[in-house]
Amino acid sequence: MTRASQRRRVHRYTAEGDEGGRADTLAGEEPLEIRLHGSSFTVTMRTPGHDFDLVAGFLVSEGVVRAPSELVQMDYRSGVDPDGQRTYNVVDVRLASGVALPDTSMQRHVYTSSSCGVCGTASIEAVTKVSSFDPAADPVRLSVPGLLALPDRLRTGQKLFATTGGVHAAGLFRWPAASADSAEAGGGPAEPELLCVREDVGRHNAVDKVVGWALREGLLPLRGTVLQVSGRASFELVQKASMAGVPALAAVSAPSALAVDLADEVGITLLGFSRGTSFNAYAHRERLVP
Amino acid sequence: MTRASQRRRVHRYTAEGDEGGRADTLAGEEPLEIRLHGSSFTVTMRTPGHDFDLVAGFLVSEGVVRAPSELVQMDYRSGVDPDGQRTYNVVDVRLASGVALPDTSMQRHVYTSSSCGVCGTASIEAVTKVSSFDPAADPVRLSVPGLLALPDRLRTGQKLFATTGGVHAAGLFRWPAASADSAEAGGGPAEPELLCVREDVGRHNAVDKVVGWALREGLLPLRGTVLQVSGRASFELVQKASMAGVPALAAVSAPSALAVDLADEVGITLLGFSRGTSFNAYAHRERLVP
Repeated sequence: MTRASQRRRVHRYTAEGDEGGRADTLAGEEPLEIRLHGSSFTVTMRTPGHDFDLVAGFLVSEGVVRAPSELVQMDYRSGVDPDGQRTYNVVDVRLASGVALPDTSMQRHVYTSSSCGVCGTASIEAVTKVSSFDPAADPVRLSVPGLLALPDRLRTGQKLFATTGGVHAAGLFRWPAASADSAEAGGGPAEPELLCVREDVGRHNAVDKVVGWALREGLLPLRGTVLQVSGRASFELVQKASMAGVPALAAVSAPSALAVDLADEVGITLLGFSRGTSFNAYAHRERLVP
Repeated sequence: MTRASQRRRVHRYTAEGDEGGRADTLAGEEPLEIRLHGSSFTVTMRTPGHDFDLVAGFLVSEGVVRAPSELVQMDYRSGVDPDGQRTYNVVDVRLASGVALPDTSMQRHVYTSSSCGVCGTASIEAVTKVSSFDPAADPVRLSVPGLLALPDRLRTGQKLFATTGGVHAAGLFRWPAASADSAEAGGGPAEPELLCVREDVGRHNAVDKVVGWALREGLLPLRGTVLQVSGRASFELVQKASMAGVPALAAVSAPSALAVDLADEVGITLLGFSRGTSFNAYAHRERLVP
């Protein structure tokens, strides 16, 4: 069963009028409810597909889990429609004993508790989650030519975008370790390895799906990697990178000022307007090498 | 005070390496907490500016208010930092007596209560809010040339995008009433009138700011209007249009399948890939005229 894309009838109009109808492929968008030990935790509108990755990544982003062993079970058993059919729109999660269940009264605001007065200060600290990992300590060195190639390499993995034009993507690349030997051997630096691409109507969901995949593969913290995203770099995406221990985030479009400030603070290399022939470096460009 | 855009230092890189540093203008992004009668209702990451429009529009989208008289007061008084300075990141709202305060346990999920089992069904009905207005009954007729011109007209109003390249926009256009007289007089159809443009790092916030402006101007329901947005058309944007009584939504990028289904159901004309020389019509194209 796949509902990642769906067909709908469309008419194209130009200055000459209606060019006639045809079938068009659109991105799927359905609600997904995440339940922790039977209690509703959140609902997100997402593109069906890789749901368990999405759930796992969301839980990493929210600071609930950080190792695969903490996530004991995920299944679709609670989502049943009136006819008794599974809807595949509810994921039940069971956490390992000892993993603290998040305070759902806090969860309400995504960023913070309702009582801490997050907006009573305009400071970054008030809305920043504390990561278990330390991307600032990552010694990875990132070659500029390797970084310039990422948007094109991401695009080749965007299967759903190719048919719908309506979804965001996130791609995770593992950087080759700098090696004096390989350069001396005349082999030149190895190419960054594409580990995972995920797509979704929501930018944040695409990143959560990649992070969740990595958690389930036992790859956290994501040392030595670059996360390339198709859209803008918001505060939240930098936060998600930080929670997963990703040392570098590259976005095809612009970052916000707060995204730059957070990247500065947590030690993440932040690139924007990454368009193939150039990019802008906004934070921690000390990792960049020719 | 404006924090809509901020300066940060940036280095541009090409295949030739670092082209050197310069100052860059980035979109502002800060948390805004909305409090209803002293209780926290939600926190959103937004671009500062037109905050009261954003709050008003969010309350319309959530089905809390639908007339300006229901919104008695909005102010920034609770947002104070440790030094006693206003942060302008908390808006306190007082509703008219008789306006039902939303159940904040429901608010948690934005789309629904935690107990109604929204995702127990995959149906649209489960996540759809009921609008006080009826966009389906709007008799407006929309000229194709007028619609084709909207993206360019929106762009001329995108002041923040012009300097930052990093924000979404929503523009509200009032359509001229069809008049046999004006055509007979040889004047041709009048141009749609641009009523309001708002920008934000969040697509949804840009739409809420426009809707909130309209509420405060006493313009709801927004009969005879078209809402043009810079990005994709998600389910949520169609929902916001419906809650404000907007009969037509046009997006520069793709709609999701669920956005099309909801537009179909609530009687909203939905256009996508609106790029100046053409657009696609996905729902209720019976309103389109040459």
